Amino acid sequence: MMVSDGFGPASETFARSYHQYVHGLPYNYTTPLDAIHVGASRTRSSSSLVTDSAAGATAFSCALKSYNAAIGVDPDGHPCGTVLEAAKARKMYTGLVATSRITHATPAAFSAHVPHRDQESAIAVQQIGDYPLGRTVDLMFGGGACFFKPKSSQNSCRTDERDVLADARRLGWSLVQSRSEFDTLPADDATKLPVLGLFARSHMSYTIDREPTKEPSLREMAEKALSLLQTAADRDDQGFFLMIEGSRIDMAAHSNDPAAHVHDIEAYHETIAAVRSFVDAHPDTVMVSVSDHETGGFTLGRQNGPEYPEYIWHPSVIHRVQNSTEKLAATIATYDQTKREAFVRDLVIKKWLGIQDAGRSDAAYIANPKRTLNEISDRLADLVSTRAMVGWTTHGHSGVDVNLYAHGAEAEQLRGNHENTDIGDFIARFLGLDLNSITQTLTKNSTFMPAKPSKDDHQASTMADVMDFKHM
Amino acid sequence: MMVSDGFGPASETFARSYHQYVHGLPYNYTTPLDAIHVGASRTRSSSSLVTDSAAGATAFSCALKSYNAAIGVDPDGHPCGTVLEAAKARKMYTGLVATSRITHATPAAFSAHVPHRDQESAIAVQQIGDYPLGRTVDLMFGGGACFFKPKSSQNSCRTDERDVLADARRLGWSLVQSRSEFDTLPADDATKLPVLGLFARSHMSYTIDREPTKEPSLREMAEKALSLLQTAADRDDQGFFLMIEGSRIDMAAHSNDPAAHVHDIEAYHETIAAVRSFVDAHPDTVMVSVSDHETGGFTLGRQNGPEYPEYIWHPSVIHRVQNSTEKLAATIATYDQTKREAFVRDLVIKKWLGIQDAGRSDAAYIANPKRTLNEISDRLADLVSTRAMVGWTTHGHSGVDVNLYAHGAEAEQLRGNHENTDIGDFIARFLGLDLNSITQTLTKNSTFMPAKPSKDDHQASTMADVMDFKHM
Repeated sequence: MMVSDGFGPASETFARSYHQYVHGLPYNYTTPLDAIHVGASRTRSSSSLVTDSAAGATAFSCALKSYNAAIGVDPDGHPCGTVLEAAKARKMYTGLVATSRITHATPAAFSAHVPHRDQESAIAVQQIGDYPLGRTVDLMFGGGACFFKPKSSQNSCRTDERDVLADARRLGWSLVQSRSEFDTLPADDATKLPVLGLFARSHMSYTIDREPTKEPSLREMAEKALSLLQTAADRDDQGFFLMIEGSRIDMAAHSNDPAAHVHDIEAYHETIAAVRSFVDAHPDTVMVSVSDHETGGFTLGRQNGPEYPEYIWHPSVIHRVQNSTEKLAATIATYDQTKREAFVRDLVIKKWLGIQDAGRSDAAYIANPKRTLNEISDRLADLVSTRAMVGWTTHGHSGVDVNLYAHGAEAEQLRGNHENTDIGDFIARFLGLDLNSITQTLTKNSTFMPAKPSKDDHQASTMADVMDFKHM
Repeated sequence: MMVSDGFGPASETFARSYHQYVHGLPYNYTTPLDAIHVGASRTRSSSSLVTDSAAGATAFSCALKSYNAAIGVDPDGHPCGTVLEAAKARKMYTGLVATSRITHATPAAFSAHVPHRDQESAIAVQQIGDYPLGRTVDLMFGGGACFFKPKSSQNSCRTDERDVLADARRLGWSLVQSRSEFDTLPADDATKLPVLGLFARSHMSYTIDREPTKEPSLREMAEKALSLLQTAADRDDQGFFLMIEGSRIDMAAHSNDPAAHVHDIEAYHETIAAVRSFVDAHPDTVMVSVSDHETGGFTLGRQNGPEYPEYIWHPSVIHRVQNSTEKLAATIATYDQTKREAFVRDLVIKKWLGIQDAGRSDAAYIANPKRTLNEISDRLADLVSTRAMVGWTTHGHSGVDVNLYAHGAEAEQLRGNHENTDIGDFIARFLGLDLNSITQTLTKNSTFMPAKPSKDDHQASTMADVMDFKHM
């Protein structure tokens, strides 16, 4: 199960044309996704025509529509059994790989049950296995270490003093906490399971900003996860379920940052290619790739003024950008105020954004110490998008159907236009899972679930997001 | 061959949710298109990542990529044989149905060859059969009578004094020039072919504005066309090729007018349902439905201010609208200036747009006699779109892949992600056509083609568009 968070139809066209431009490929070059395009997924949640990632992922994991913010719960807030939990109940191996915090909406919705996505402190505890079903996850790779550390420790975002990493170790988890530990983790040693690999305090870096010596790529995490789970499954003559998310495709779109967006899509494409190879080598497996929703109201073309627009957009503009606007904004905000305007003009705009024709007012606006990080990031992104002639209508989500891709055994069942819940139904059917019995067990023991989120919970998630933004 | 001009992925989601809202249907209600969704079409032209309708239609008709504005010519401006012409060469029956002028880009690209789409005077002449291949079209239903009348006559847009209607009559065409003549045209009398039905001077009305006593609907034209062509084909034991275009889905999106857009999509859906029934009753036929491109950079969700947006959009707002902004703007611009502001406030905005919370400044802005028709239309459309929370990034086109739909014999060949030229290849293969031999015949006789368009040509197309806008 592969999830490209916040990746609408325009984003796929965008990444294809960008790749053609950068590599000088003909117009009929297609991406690893294009070749396995089977249909579309309808994304609305039970509470709105525009879903969030929590309801979107719960549709995949529980095969039911729930409200925006719901993590593994139904519209009434009752826990619902997920395909991951049901796979574990059948003794299969299970894993979650994401470039966001592993406690973020999408991975959480497969492995936890809370009324609101911001309850990440509770989510982390359930994910390591401290809940009525016991441990249901065998492998987690991603970011979000801050929700596994006690509140009083450095770099924690928890709302309590629980040391979830220590608890995980007690429950038998192997801990992987750096790039070098990831590299030395053997891909074929099933005794290392369960394994918890956390490579960033909050989200992992955008691909455009990533330092390969510090963080593995999505493809590298996916390949090691596949190998470990397959090794264990082979040993026990079992199957496995793995969810892999290109999490930050979405976040770049929230920032209306086309360069960070396309680089994270390319990383997702590379991962798709790797997983397709795995599926080709294992004919009894199937890969599904889908998005939870579109983000940004992203369009390939825009009108920059009252004049009727030219019919074009420019990948070349985006190709010149060297960092995410998030990282550049954080760098600017901490730069010496007396030299900031020259820094923005000469280095940020000209060198790192590759824009030579910005006005004086742009650098002055951005360098103004009154600006928030979001204001700086938005202006940087807009400098790029207006010149590239790509459009955005929101910093939030939109309601368009998203593309559905599938490859491998029984993939043809997903042809055509589907409800997002059909993806969950397909997985359950393919793996022979019984979600209802899991739901019943959870419902009988539902006191494990926290009540509505506290103010602390919301603050903790916001703090984690800001931590990421500030690169503290 | 069905073309939904300017209909991107968001427009299909939009129309589905709108229909569910209006008719109180459950979230899993699907449209006549959803059920036959097979993949996507890549839309770029030979000259740009964002195509226009001329290059888009030429990709379908000639199965080759050409430049924006190209009508049945290749990137070098040489004529290319179309699937319609090749079908006629195999003695099949052929037809074109559109709600635009029949000389407009999409129908033109199947039936004419000129360097630029604005050469509509020349297009009309070729369409009735005055070109090297002789008459290749058996049926045309649509708008655009103004390009068939001599320049000096009333309601003409031609650049010359040619009476194309009189020429058509001489060449054997039955002329149908009103709703009543359309109604009395027998659907099963093949002797009426060739038949030329022109129901408007310029484009036919938007569905939201259409007066059924004056103009047939797209579905009515499609059903009569199917019946006439099938009757003739049966008589001669031949096949037929019919292109049906929902032309003004695109134009409403150019105007960023969500209400006119959705009503034209609903008319297209009804037509799809009718054609699907025909295909079901004739197992040796196939229907393909595709768009040439997206228009408007349309998104289901938008951010109306600096605050982070709510995740929602509101079909209810669009459901209250009673006319296109094009028609309302034309009405306003001709209204008594002294009473105009009250008219705009009390009738246009409150009654016909159904908006009760507009500000005084809105009516004052719109009623100002200095406003152009476009300015009035844009403001009316924006009043609706901001409240419905749907977004637009341009009055032009965008580059996103569009949905591909197919139903009937060999439809499964169109599954997956395709180049737009694949649609032309599919039709040629399905009907056993030889496009190259047509291209060779045309090339040998290419002096029939006009040179580059004159200033008069551009003015004529613009005048026709304005004629439509002004409802003169």
